Amino acid sequence: MNRPESVTGAAGADETRGRAAPMAPAAAGTSAPAAPWPRDEFEARLRALGARYHIHHPYHRMMHEGRCTKDQIRGWVINRYYYQVCIPIKDANVLANCPDPAVRREWVQRIIDHDGAPGETGGIEAWLALADACGLDRERVAALTDVLPGVRFAVDAYVNFARRASWQEAACSSLTELFAPEIHQQRLTGWPDHYPWIDDAGLTYFRKRLSEARRDVEHGLAITLDHFTTRADQEHALSILQFKLDVLWSMLDAMWMAYVADMPPYHSCAEPRP
Amino acid sequence: MNRPESVTGAAGADETRGRAAPMAPAAAGTSAPAAPWPRDEFEARLRALGARYHIHHPYHRMMHEGRCTKDQIRGWVINRYYYQVCIPIKDANVLANCPDPAVRREWVQRIIDHDGAPGETGGIEAWLALADACGLDRERVAALTDVLPGVRFAVDAYVNFARRASWQEAACSSLTELFAPEIHQQRLTGWPDHYPWIDDAGLTYFRKRLSEARRDVEHGLAITLDHFTTRADQEHALSILQFKLDVLWSMLDAMWMAYVADMPPYHSCAEPRP
Repeated sequence: MNRPESVTGAAGADETRGRAAPMAPAAAGTSAPAAPWPRDEFEARLRALGARYHIHHPYHRMMHEGRCTKDQIRGWVINRYYYQVCIPIKDANVLANCPDPAVRREWVQRIIDHDGAPGETGGIEAWLALADACGLDRERVAALTDVLPGVRFAVDAYVNFARRASWQEAACSSLTELFAPEIHQQRLTGWPDHYPWIDDAGLTYFRKRLSEARRDVEHGLAITLDHFTTRADQEHALSILQFKLDVLWSMLDAMWMAYVADMPPYHSCAEPRP
Repeated sequence: MNRPESVTGAAGADETRGRAAPMAPAAAGTSAPAAPWPRDEFEARLRALGARYHIHHPYHRMMHEGRCTKDQIRGWVINRYYYQVCIPIKDANVLANCPDPAVRREWVQRIIDHDGAPGETGGIEAWLALADACGLDRERVAALTDVLPGVRFAVDAYVNFARRASWQEAACSSLTELFAPEIHQQRLTGWPDHYPWIDDAGLTYFRKRLSEARRDVEHGLAITLDHFTTRADQEHALSILQFKLDVLWSMLDAMWMAYVADMPPYHSCAEPRP
C-alpha cells in the first residue's frame, strides 16, 4: 500500500508509529509479499489490540476500583469533556472526506448522538450532566478552562488524523469502540457503590453509549474489514488502531501527572511577573 | 481582534487556552477596551513567560543537576529528535502561509540551519551526532521508533498550529527562543562534568544553536511586536507563547512518565495475542 500523505506525521514519518508493528510482521527472508489474513483473523488481530485499551491504565484501574479521590474523578470528567466535544468535529471530518452518500447517511448519526437531534439533548449534554452530578461548575467545564495541555494535544491529534486521513482510515481509528461497552458497563456497575456522592442521573451518558457504541462499531468494523484487504493494508489498519490507543492512553498519562503524581503543568515554576 | 479560524482548536475553542490569561487581563468593570501596552511593556510580558520555560521542569532540572541516568539522557535525546526533525516542517508552514518575499528570505534560513546548506550538515545531523555520542543507534533514532506518543502529539500540535495559523502567529509561537540561549549554555557548562561518558563532539548542536537562536529571536520578536498592536492582539500573542510553552512542558511530562516514573505506555498491559 502506498501510504497517502494524509496519514504521515508532521515529519513525514508514520503518525501511527512508535509501536509500529503491534503484531508480528510478515516472516522475514521471503521475497513474495505476505498473503492477506482471512477476514476473521484480521478481525481477531484488531480485537487483540484491546489488550492495550485504556481500561488497563493505572488511572482507570484506580477509578474502577474505587480508589480515586473526588478531585481525581472530577479531573477526569473535566478533561474527558474535551474528548467528548471533539468527537463530533472528528466525525464531521469523516463526512467531509467521504464522497459516498450511503456511508455519510449512516455516519452522520454519530454527530447527532453527541449534539442531539433538534429539540433533544445528546451526549455532550449528558456529559455536562455528569459534571453537574460530580459537583462541578458546568460553565467552567464547557469553557475548557482546566483541560490539561497533554489531553488537548492527544485529542487534537485524533481530530487532525481524521482531517487528513482517508475516511476509511478515520473509520478504522474509531475501532476502540470495540472495547468501549466493557468500560461503560464497569462504570455503571461500580460507580454507585464506590462513588455514592455522584448522583445516579449523572451516569446517563454511560447508559446511552452502551447501546450506541455497539451499533457504531458494527459499521466501522465492516468498513475496515472491507477496505483493508492486502496484508500491508491490514498491518496499516492495525497501526491506525494502535495510534488511537495511544491517544486514549496519553490522555490518562497527562491526568496521572496532574492529579495522581501531583505534578500539574508549571507546578515547579514561579508566577510570571512582567 | 477577530480570531482567525486557523488558531482555534479542534472544538472551536482557543488552542492556546487552558492558561488563557497568563497575565492579568484588562481591569473588569470598564466598558472601553483597554489601551495597548507600550512596546517595551509588551516585550517584558512576553519575556516574563520565561518563568514557565521547560528549564524549570523536574526532568530538565534532573538533567542539569547531573542526576539523570544514562537511559534518562538517552530517552531525552531520542524523543527530542522528533522535535528537531519537525522544526523545519513547522518553518516550511510559516513560509507557505507568508506572502512577503522579504520575510521568507530571512525565515528560510531556519530551514537551512536544520537541514544544512548543500554540501554541509545542519542541526538535524548535529543532533544525530549527539545520539552517537550517547551510544545510541543513529538509524533507530532517525527511524523515530522509540518516540513516545505524548511527545509526538505535543510536537505535532506545534506543527499543526503553524500550518493553520497566520505566519505572524506562527512567528510568535517561536518566541520560546527568547529563553533558549540559557538552556543551551547550561548544557554546555554542566554536561562535560556531569556526563563525561558523552563525547564532547556530541555537544556541537548546543554550541551551534547558541548563536542561531539569538539571531532568530530578533526576527521573531520584531514581527510579534509589530503585528500585535491592540491590547486584545497582545493578549492573544501571550496566549500563543503560552501554547508553545505547553508543547515543551508536555514533551517532558511524557518523558517523566516513561523514564522517571517508570510508567511507559502499556507498562500495565499484557501483550496482545490474536
